[in-house]
Amino acid sequence: MLNIEKPTLIINKDIVLSNIKRSKELSKKLSISFRPHFKTHQSLEVGTWFKKLGIKKITVSSVEMAKYFSNQWDDITIAFPFNILEIKKVNILLKKIKINLLVDSIETIEFLDNNLNDKIRVYVKIDLGYKRAGISFNDLKKIKLTIKKIKNSKMLIFGGFLSHFGNTYNSKNKTDISKTYINSINNIETLKFNLDQRINFTIGDTPSLSILERVPDFVNEIRPGNFIFYDLYQNKIGSCSLSKIAVRMICPIVSVYPKDKKILIYGGSVHFSKDFIIEKGNKCYGYVYYGNNFWNTSKKIGYIQSLSQEHGIIKIEKQDNYKVGDLLSIIPIHSCLTADKMGEYFCDNKKISMMKT
Amino acid sequence: MLNIEKPTLIINKDIVLSNIKRSKELSKKLSISFRPHFKTHQSLEVGTWFKKLGIKKITVSSVEMAKYFSNQWDDITIAFPFNILEIKKVNILLKKIKINLLVDSIETIEFLDNNLNDKIRVYVKIDLGYKRAGISFNDLKKIKLTIKKIKNSKMLIFGGFLSHFGNTYNSKNKTDISKTYINSINNIETLKFNLDQRINFTIGDTPSLSILERVPDFVNEIRPGNFIFYDLYQNKIGSCSLSKIAVRMICPIVSVYPKDKKILIYGGSVHFSKDFIIEKGNKCYGYVYYGNNFWNTSKKIGYIQSLSQEHGIIKIEKQDNYKVGDLLSIIPIHSCLTADKMGEYFCDNKKISMMKT
Repeated sequence: MLNIEKPTLIINKDIVLSNIKRSKELSKKLSISFRPHFKTHQSLEVGTWFKKLGIKKITVSSVEMAKYFSNQWDDITIAFPFNILEIKKVNILLKKIKINLLVDSIETIEFLDNNLNDKIRVYVKIDLGYKRAGISFNDLKKIKLTIKKIKNSKMLIFGGFLSHFGNTYNSKNKTDISKTYINSINNIETLKFNLDQRINFTIGDTPSLSILERVPDFVNEIRPGNFIFYDLYQNKIGSCSLSKIAVRMICPIVSVYPKDKKILIYGGSVHFSKDFIIEKGNKCYGYVYYGNNFWNTSKKIGYIQSLSQEHGIIKIEKQDNYKVGDLLSIIPIHSCLTADKMGEYFCDNKKISMMKT
Repeated sequence: MLNIEKPTLIINKDIVLSNIKRSKELSKKLSISFRPHFKTHQSLEVGTWFKKLGIKKITVSSVEMAKYFSNQWDDITIAFPFNILEIKKVNILLKKIKINLLVDSIETIEFLDNNLNDKIRVYVKIDLGYKRAGISFNDLKKIKLTIKKIKNSKMLIFGGFLSHFGNTYNSKNKTDISKTYINSINNIETLKFNLDQRINFTIGDTPSLSILERVPDFVNEIRPGNFIFYDLYQNKIGSCSLSKIAVRMICPIVSVYPKDKKILIYGGSVHFSKDFIIEKGNKCYGYVYYGNNFWNTSKKIGYIQSLSQEHGIIKIEKQDNYKVGDLLSIIPIHSCLTADKMGEYFCDNKKISMMKT
């Protein structure tokens, strides 16, 4: 049995495997390629679980993450607009494995063409409404110019378009997710119509995955990441049931304040991250459970009401026999950031090392 | 010159030393003990700068942090209600150095008395209005019982009361900070009156430091932490001028969207943390500057409007000659969490290792 003395992140392999299988089967059913995003788990060991299920190519969010995973993976898309200051690292990686890059600026294309040692496949980042990064699907002039630049270059191969429907994260329920998804797909249709040519699109976000039943034929790849662990945020917007959430933070009780119906835990923003959801008008940084089975979600005892650096304050529904030294099991809001903050997690009582450790 | 290719945290030693000196001189002027909190910088190397200025005792926020600093420091207060699951580590530490603990529960006191191998000084955590942790200053019955329990124990020495005026962080300006400070001090006066005895109080928060001109004679120690680096949050609430902020995040531009007056940087919530301030109704995750001198605050070009895992979106005031690959200098909102997230920082082009590295 794992000896837990301080805030500890655990994952449930059965749930993880089931989450991967479901997504893989979905992509098979839809006849599209499955290129999971590894920024959530950031672990070579967890990567081997994907390998055993037949997954052969992955997505990462940084050049460093590509370097880390290049030890075991030979087809990696870095799904972040390329940072030209990291050209040396990319040239080194290219000697070893296949790397796909993302671009949304002419300057970057010119820089790559002049500084790459090997040919590389690039995707053009298209903004379909999320308004974070990429060329707007409406900016036909820039899209055409970008494709032309790539096609006229010596070192770049045009791979198609890449998009992230990040605005699905603003949903309140599955219907909202569907609306954003359909709107994004309609915007792709518009772009396809305006360009008057077949275009491959790689798309990726976990909420969309939960409502995906069919995709247009030009969408040939999905790249979800968070689905492996899910979290309370995904549950809240309708992406998953609580039973599909594969992570828990285990935190010791350090004080009980029965009068205020509060518990102080060792577990703060350096462990959880500061993401929250709003429930009944209150900020909630995680659902809290009590008992020997950390995975039992039948009896929620309260929620994290506030977080500071090392402190977490739990609002409990009613006083019970909670004691200092007891462990509480907490479903975090954002599993990607929690895993990143913790830098390690445990599975079946063994430590799983991540990129940072 | 430091070769910056990715989000990099830098600190300015001159400003750091000046911040430490000012606080030390203030404590000297007030004739109280100065026990800085090391959770902000988390670095043995930065610790040596304090040593050179004559500081001999410190505060930390976890047993692990006490262990890390025990290599160079022999008087450490762990300013977090003691987590009984870490008793073994504390017993080991106690063989080596002087450790002071914090308690606010009878169970923890009894546990310590039964499980400590050596005598230890404990402080009783008092809640003066922040409502995070500790016994309320109004709960005289529990305070008296707690002191009695400590005095009747074999292994515990009563060190006095400890409080954190964390509600100063809710201030809008210096006047607000003063009000909260005075209110907390008044609550100490009430407690002193009700207990009818002299009580030593150790207090600590960076905002109070900025308005501290005199302290009541029963306050005998201050434990601020953030003051070493400060940050935009502290500037916003009136604790410091921009010139006293000793940290910058340096981030590469990866795309420029002139039409939207936006810049995409490599730098996201895994680097900055998700803290923000509100300015003119908008969320702001940091002030952004351009130019070779990263410390020049005379020409702000914009602010971080949103952060996701690796992406930062900067809203710029007007388009200029910004190019991909240029570096931007950013004042973060919360230096403690940014340093904790980054796990390392640089000073005078050299890497400063932290607890995590």
